[in-house]
Amino acid sequence: MRILGIDPGYATIGFGLIEAERWNARMLSYGAITTPAGLPLSRRLYQISRDAEELIGKLQPDAISIEELFFNTNITTGIAVAHARGVLLCAAEKCGVPLFEYTPGQVKLAVTGYGKAEKRQVMDMTKRLLHLAALPRPDDAADALALALCHARSSTSQLPQTKPERETI
Amino acid sequence: MRILGIDPGYATIGFGLIEAERWNARMLSYGAITTPAGLPLSRRLYQISRDAEELIGKLQPDAISIEELFFNTNITTGIAVAHARGVLLCAAEKCGVPLFEYTPGQVKLAVTGYGKAEKRQVMDMTKRLLHLAALPRPDDAADALALALCHARSSTSQLPQTKPERETI
Repeated sequence: MRILGIDPGYATIGFGLIEAERWNARMLSYGAITTPAGLPLSRRLYQISRDAEELIGKLQPDAISIEELFFNTNITTGIAVAHARGVLLCAAEKCGVPLFEYTPGQVKLAVTGYGKAEKRQVMDMTKRLLHLAALPRPDDAADALALALCHARSSTSQLPQTKPERETI
Repeated sequence: MRILGIDPGYATIGFGLIEAERWNARMLSYGAITTPAGLPLSRRLYQISRDAEELIGKLQPDAISIEELFFNTNITTGIAVAHARGVLLCAAEKCGVPLFEYTPGQVKLAVTGYGKAEKRQVMDMTKRLLHLAALPRPDDAADALALALCHARSSTSQLPQTKPERETI
């Protein structure tokens, strides 16, 4: 099963594609969609829309795993991210790819076994679980790969969830 | 100049089209795009996207006037509206229609002359300025017509702004 993780944003949208089978997963592709800071939000949204549709069409995922949105202290940034996330959900729906949403806590739990893990721990486990030599850059792409892993390890993915006797990491 | 006002939302998106010339304006069309409550947000967003593009294509506005988003007490609703607003901005950009954003206070000021007017006063003035026999329903459509009027009366619309000696209302 090809799972595309998407870390939503309006300046940088991380993406990461994995091939997952049972508890084994490998990284196929990762990167980021970026939009220039000087453009009005509507232009950036349209660019995100086109780039996301093109990306999904090219990568042909069986499922998309996207982060749920929580507002932290900066509500202005939060509103803009919600605008962009709307465009990303719309693109996934347009491409007909099943969509799954996870909170940061669910991602931490699925990837490290601990729902309150530090970001660094999540990154390290993502690297180990995908047998990567180095941590993907930008961080948004690494976050997106963690989201993809989270879906692979969640019951909603409908992958067989029998845990191997020894993890292969 | 044909101005399309849009009152953003995810369940009901009000729209109102006016033809405005100097300080005279008349209503051409109004209504609402609605999405069913039972659908997942992503489906609703995709439906909004298609319906908005179709609407803009059909109404052929020279400008779109859309409300700026402010979060009130219900942050969950606010996030969903921001998702939908992102899709609406994207549709306007895709259709190549210049986009203008106004706060509720700017709409009140432009339509009633008082930035803290009651909703009822804004509705009444919208009805009078557009020579309507009755207030359009749903409220979202009336709000959208007020947004269109706001743009017509704002300097950014680039309409001649010489106020007539006597208002024709």
